[in-house]
Amino acid sequence: MSTRAIERMRLAADEAAAQGFDALVVPPSPDLAYLAGYDPMPLERPTMLVLRAGVPPVMLVPELERPLAAESPGGSGIELVGWIDGVDPYDEMRRLAPAQGRIAVGDRLWASHLIGLERALPDVVFGPASPVIGRLRAVKDDDELAALRQAARGADESFREICTMTFLGRTELEIAADLAGLLVRNGHSRAEFTIVAAGPNAASPHHEPGARTIVASDVVVMDFGGELDGYYSDTTRTVAVGEPPPAFERVYETVRQAQQAACEAVAPGVEAQHVDRVARRIVDDAGFGDRFIHRTGHGIGLEVHEPPYLVEGNDWLLEPGTTFSVEPGIYLEGRFGVRIEDIVAVTAAGVERLNRSTRELQVVE
Amino acid sequence: MSTRAIERMRLAADEAAAQGFDALVVPPSPDLAYLAGYDPMPLERPTMLVLRAGVPPVMLVPELERPLAAESPGGSGIELVGWIDGVDPYDEMRRLAPAQGRIAVGDRLWASHLIGLERALPDVVFGPASPVIGRLRAVKDDDELAALRQAARGADESFREICTMTFLGRTELEIAADLAGLLVRNGHSRAEFTIVAAGPNAASPHHEPGARTIVASDVVVMDFGGELDGYYSDTTRTVAVGEPPPAFERVYETVRQAQQAACEAVAPGVEAQHVDRVARRIVDDAGFGDRFIHRTGHGIGLEVHEPPYLVEGNDWLLEPGTTFSVEPGIYLEGRFGVRIEDIVAVTAAGVERLNRSTRELQVVE
Repeated sequence: MSTRAIERMRLAADEAAAQGFDALVVPPSPDLAYLAGYDPMPLERPTMLVLRAGVPPVMLVPELERPLAAESPGGSGIELVGWIDGVDPYDEMRRLAPAQGRIAVGDRLWASHLIGLERALPDVVFGPASPVIGRLRAVKDDDELAALRQAARGADESFREICTMTFLGRTELEIAADLAGLLVRNGHSRAEFTIVAAGPNAASPHHEPGARTIVASDVVVMDFGGELDGYYSDTTRTVAVGEPPPAFERVYETVRQAQQAACEAVAPGVEAQHVDRVARRIVDDAGFGDRFIHRTGHGIGLEVHEPPYLVEGNDWLLEPGTTFSVEPGIYLEGRFGVRIEDIVAVTAAGVERLNRSTRELQVVE
Repeated sequence: MSTRAIERMRLAADEAAAQGFDALVVPPSPDLAYLAGYDPMPLERPTMLVLRAGVPPVMLVPELERPLAAESPGGSGIELVGWIDGVDPYDEMRRLAPAQGRIAVGDRLWASHLIGLERALPDVVFGPASPVIGRLRAVKDDDELAALRQAARGADESFREICTMTFLGRTELEIAADLAGLLVRNGHSRAEFTIVAAGPNAASPHHEPGARTIVASDVVVMDFGGELDGYYSDTTRTVAVGEPPPAFERVYETVRQAQQAACEAVAPGVEAQHVDRVARRIVDDAGFGDRFIHRTGHGIGLEVHEPPYLVEGNDWLLEPGTTFSVEPGIYLEGRFGVRIEDIVAVTAAGVERLNRSTRELQVVE
């Protein structure tokens, strides 16, 4: 039995109680991997870990996955209750979960399973568990920070190498395939996403790379990352293919300054929304406020997107060890877009940039 | 605009109404890919397609993904309503969804999003959408059947080739890596799962392949599949490494007969649970009933597991075009396990096996 799993499950149960929840129900998800070291596929057969302060952990598992659960790092410290195909697993949960009060459920629990729980436990009020588990997961320990640093270094090296390759006359899909290969060559187990958006496509922040051939004066946004030891990289750089289009330089410089100022605003005790405001103020002042169509960043760790979110309305106080992206962008429909993204870690002294790629405009060929 | 997307969305809205739902809410998932040809990653930012009988489709999308949604096959036939980071997306849903009555939500909608909807629409009763959308998706058209046949052929060829390779002295992980490579070499875009369970591990139906080295007289269960043109393969065979252990042959023969009888029981108008009962009767009669610890099968298509499930209590009537696995198994803890699995399609005349690998015991070296 992993002492780390015991400790994390206990902390989560205590935090749930402190936030007024009578239990925490955790399905297969990065939450379960974090708490119990158990990471099966989420499926139509529910698996649910039940944590309550002062009570030993118990987990409902499909009978055919009981050996798998028992062998997981947290397995020997969790009482396993098997259910067999044909019985109603939500009925079984009546024996494991409180019949009244408030239960926090993992954000990624499938709706079909939550509806099953709501019917089996009609007197319970359910809430999302991210304010509980997300709070614990947000603050990384030294091993987690080391994995995130290594992933960031691999992404940085991938960017350096892609800039030496040919862009002109090749398609977005070809550049995306190169990036995926570079991520793996630079230490990742696999590439998770490789957005390559050229020309007018760069104005679509989550563009899917396609058959568009890159031409002279295209702006190319590359947003890519992968998994390394369970943790993710995620970085964005915007390059110009030869001479950039008119007005591009002012937009690029605005995004660069906004990203720089937002990174400098990161420190312990600062509200998450403050970092967003600092970036947005600079973009607003340059007259592009309505073209900065997304929040400034998101936490990162076992998931590419996780709390805290750097968005207006989020008064979450940053703590040392918290890791997130800082990624302002400006998108001019039909013309081009610019985004610059680094992962940063809050430190006792302020901030550490995990990504170190140059933020000066790179002109490629 | 794809006419197929228009037709499928209309059919789903009509089926929802026929089942007493006032609307259908579909998140990023195989359901959305099926209905609208749109397949973004499910994320903390909700995307929700709303379908109502006689009303044009409308979809709530994060503003930064609006271009992506607009370009999808169903995009031009769906009214897109963007929401921007910082606003409450569930509040926006009040304008798109009915304020009262019953709403069916996609099974894979995240609990955090369902809880958001429940708070925004307190007078609505929510139910899972699989009885609606799963019913449509279960009956495959000719293109879907062709993709599933091709995937099954690739899996069969992979089994044939793995049996010519060396098992003795190699690890489960090495065999699993070979299987993954074979699936890709045989037409799949990627391997989705490669269970290789040797010796006592074969008694764990969802065993994760590990460092165990295969020795003489091991029984090896291989359960593997991958994706081809969006559709999945999934097949299982059990082989013996040299001379099998005592009692093995009787168990193998029982599973083989149960699988054969269950396949022969498949026909239009038969209840899903009948197929399970036919397999289970044979295993019960041989004295292994309590060691057949899972249902007999699951639907397959855009997901590896989807309705219909062949399980006691499911009176779903099989229709021509429906595809599912038939996979009885017997698991003797600490000793070995046996499972044989084929994908079959219901036809007007009865049944078509998509997998054609031999079910006679293969002895490998």
